Amino acid sequence: MRPSLHGGDPSVLRRLNSAATLRALRDGGECTLTELAGRVGLSRPTTEGVLAGLIDRGLAAESAPRPGAGLGRPARRYRFRADAGYALGIDIDAHRVSVAVADLTGDVVGGHRAGLDVQGPPGERIAAVRDAVTACLAAVDVDRRSLLAVAAGTPGVVAPDGTVTSCTAVPGWEGVRLGRELARSFSCPVLVENDANLAAVAERWRGAARDTDDVVCVHAGLHTGMGAIIGGRLHRGRWGAAGEVGMLPELGLRYTTAALLTGTDACPKAAEAALAAFASGVGDAPGAALRGAGVDHVDHADRVLEAAGWDAAEAKAVVERLAARMARGVAAMALALDPEMIVVGGPLVRAGDLLVTELRRRIAPLCLSPVRIEASELADEAVGLGAVRLALDRIDEDLFRLDRRPAADA
Amino acid sequence: MRPSLHGGDPSVLRRLNSAATLRALRDGGECTLTELAGRVGLSRPTTEGVLAGLIDRGLAAESAPRPGAGLGRPARRYRFRADAGYALGIDIDAHRVSVAVADLTGDVVGGHRAGLDVQGPPGERIAAVRDAVTACLAAVDVDRRSLLAVAAGTPGVVAPDGTVTSCTAVPGWEGVRLGRELARSFSCPVLVENDANLAAVAERWRGAARDTDDVVCVHAGLHTGMGAIIGGRLHRGRWGAAGEVGMLPELGLRYTTAALLTGTDACPKAAEAALAAFASGVGDAPGAALRGAGVDHVDHADRVLEAAGWDAAEAKAVVERLAARMARGVAAMALALDPEMIVVGGPLVRAGDLLVTELRRRIAPLCLSPVRIEASELADEAVGLGAVRLALDRIDEDLFRLDRRPAADA
Repeated sequence: MRPSLHGGDPSVLRRLNSAATLRALRDGGECTLTELAGRVGLSRPTTEGVLAGLIDRGLAAESAPRPGAGLGRPARRYRFRADAGYALGIDIDAHRVSVAVADLTGDVVGGHRAGLDVQGPPGERIAAVRDAVTACLAAVDVDRRSLLAVAAGTPGVVAPDGTVTSCTAVPGWEGVRLGRELARSFSCPVLVENDANLAAVAERWRGAARDTDDVVCVHAGLHTGMGAIIGGRLHRGRWGAAGEVGMLPELGLRYTTAALLTGTDACPKAAEAALAAFASGVGDAPGAALRGAGVDHVDHADRVLEAAGWDAAEAKAVVERLAARMARGVAAMALALDPEMIVVGGPLVRAGDLLVTELRRRIAPLCLSPVRIEASELADEAVGLGAVRLALDRIDEDLFRLDRRPAADA
Repeated sequence: MRPSLHGGDPSVLRRLNSAATLRALRDGGECTLTELAGRVGLSRPTTEGVLAGLIDRGLAAESAPRPGAGLGRPARRYRFRADAGYALGIDIDAHRVSVAVADLTGDVVGGHRAGLDVQGPPGERIAAVRDAVTACLAAVDVDRRSLLAVAAGTPGVVAPDGTVTSCTAVPGWEGVRLGRELARSFSCPVLVENDANLAAVAERWRGAARDTDDVVCVHAGLHTGMGAIIGGRLHRGRWGAAGEVGMLPELGLRYTTAALLTGTDACPKAAEAALAAFASGVGDAPGAALRGAGVDHVDHADRVLEAAGWDAAEAKAVVERLAARMARGVAAMALALDPEMIVVGGPLVRAGDLLVTELRRRIAPLCLSPVRIEASELADEAVGLGAVRLALDRIDEDLFRLDRRPAADA
C-alpha cells in the first residue's frame, strides 16, 4: 500500500505538494495564500499553482471577502470545500437502522433513524435501509450523486467482499451479500463492516480512545461484539472475523444478554422485550413494556430491568451476572492483544453504568497489564459514526493518494 | 514514526535517493553503475554521487575486477558491504543459551550454544550468557565493536525497557532488568523481547509464514508462548504482554507441559527430565535420562516420552492430552485475531509431529475461519533467528531513516 517513491521523479514532488496543501487547507482552516505557503513549507508561487489545481478540482475555493481592518484591499482568503462531497454511514442493527451524513471535514450534517423487523426477510430489511437512506438524504438536502463513499455496519462476521458470513443476532441474515445489495443504490464505493469494529473506529476518532493507538472496544447490546484498533488502525482479520473470541464456549459472549434474560425462570419475557426495545432505541412493539412502565428513555441496563418490573436488587444482580460472563471474554481479548485501553460501549452502556463498574472490577484481576477500562461516551451512535469515519477514510485514500494522479487531476 | 516529508525541500530527495540506492545495492546484489542507476530510476551522474557517499560511509565498495569477456577495460562493479557491521541474536531459554551472529544481509556467519542452570541465580545465568557471546564472537572472528545491534529473547513478559515483568518458566527471573544488564556488554543498542514473539518474527522472515502478513505463532516448549505478526509487524502490546491469553484459567497454556508430566501418577519424573533435556537441546544433567535410554537426539514429543521409558500408546496419549489443552488457548488467540495462518513451532515440534496433527484436528472446529495450521521448519533455532532479525531491523532503522541525516553521513 505504500506509494512507490522513486527518487528523481519530479511528479512525486508535485503530488506530495498537492496532497500536503490540500491537507493543510482542510485541517488548518481558511487562510491567505501566504499563510498557506507557510503551513506547507512551499514557496508562494508554487503554492499558488497547487492551489489553482485544487480549485479546478472543486476541492478549494476563494472565501467571500471580509471587511479589512487596515487600508487597501484585504488579502484573498482560501478555504477547503467541505461540501465538495459527502460520506454516508449506516448502522444496520437487529431492531433499528441509523443513517448519518457527514461533509468532507467529518461534520455530521444530518441523520435519520427507523425501526427494523429483526424477524423480517433480508430483502425487506434491506428495502427499509434504502428507505431510511432516501429519507435522510432528503432531510439534509444532499444529492445522492454527491456521496463519495458509503459504509455500513452490521452484527456478524463480514467477509472482505461485504458478505455476512456468520450472524446470530439476526435470523436469516447469514449469507446476505450486503455489500453487493447496498452498492445497487449508490454510484460510489460501498463498504460493509462488523458493527463492533465500527464502534472501535468511532471510539478512536471521537470517543474515549482518541489518543490511543491500541484499544479493544466492547460493543454491548443484545449481542456482544468486540473490535480492536492496533497501531492506530482497525484490525479486521484475514476473513473479517477478528474479535470473535466469545465463540469459545468457555468465554461465551454471544448469548450472554439473551441467556441471562431467558435462561432462568427469574427473567420474565417482558424484561427481554424491554431490553430489546432499549437496544433498538425506537419505540415499536417491544417498546410497549418500557412505555407501560412509564419510561420513555432508559440508559442503564439495570434501570431497564427495573423499568420492566424487576425490583432494584434483582436488576442489579442480573447486570452483575452479565458482567461476570462478559468479563472472561473481554479479558481473553485483552490478554491476546495487551491493549492500552478497553472501551465498553454500545446501547447497554453509559458512563457511570453499573455494567462498566462491574466489568472494571472483574476484568482487572484477570489481566497481566494495568489496562484502563473506560465507558464509551458515544452511546448508540458509535456504529454510525464509525461507518462515517470508514467512508471518509475511503474518500481520503482518493484525495491524498501519491502513487498515481487522481482521476480528477488528469 | 513516518518521516516528515515537506514538499519543496531538496534534502528530502537526496535522502530518498541515498536510501533507495543503498537498498537496491543490498537487495539486488553486485552491479555496475549503469545497472544501479537503472534499478533506482536515477540518472547516472546522480547515482554516481550517491554511491560515492555510500562508499565514504563504508556501506558500499568497488568489487574486485572480473575478467571481461569483451575488449577493453570491464565496467567497474559495486557491492553492498555486508561486513560493514554485524547483528547479534541471543536466545536465553530456561535450560540453554544460543547465540547467532549475522552480517548485514542477514547471513548467519556463526553461532554458539551452552547450557544454563534454570535454578541458578539471575546474575549467574547472565554471566553464562556473556561467556557464550564472547565464545561466539571469538569463534567467528567478529570484533565486538562491529556489532551494530543486539537482540535477546527470553521466556516471560518483557516490558518495553527490557525488564522481565512476569515469568513462570525460570525461577527468580521475574524482575530482572535484562536489557540493562546485557547493555553493559555492548556499545550498540540492545533489545530484549519475549521468545515466542521472536519465534513469530523468525517464521515471518525465513519460516512457514514468509508470505503472510497476519500470523499467530505458537512456541511450544516446556512453557508455551504465543506471538503475533499483524500487518507484517510484530504486535508486542502496550506492556509487551500480547499473546498471553493462556493466563485465563479456562485456557491455561502456561503449565500444560509441566502439568501433564507431573500432575498425574502416570508421569514419571524421568519423563519430565527427558522433556527438559529435549527442550534444552544440550546434554547436561537432565539429559542423562535420554542418554540413559540410548537416545542422542529426539525431535518428536511422543518419541521423547518413549525414549524416557513410556510405551508408545501411553506416550501418544500424553501428547494428545497436551494438544487438547493447548488447542483452546491457541483457538482463543485465533478467534481474537483471525490470522491467515497459525505456525506451531518450538523445541517440542517438528513437521509431521503428532502434536501438530492433533492441534490441527482440535483447533479447526473451534475457529470461525478456515485458518491454516502449519508446523514450523525452524525447530529450536526460531528464537535466535528472530533475535537476529530484530537486531537487523534496528540497524535498518538507522541505515534507511529519512527523517534526519544519519550520523555517519554528516
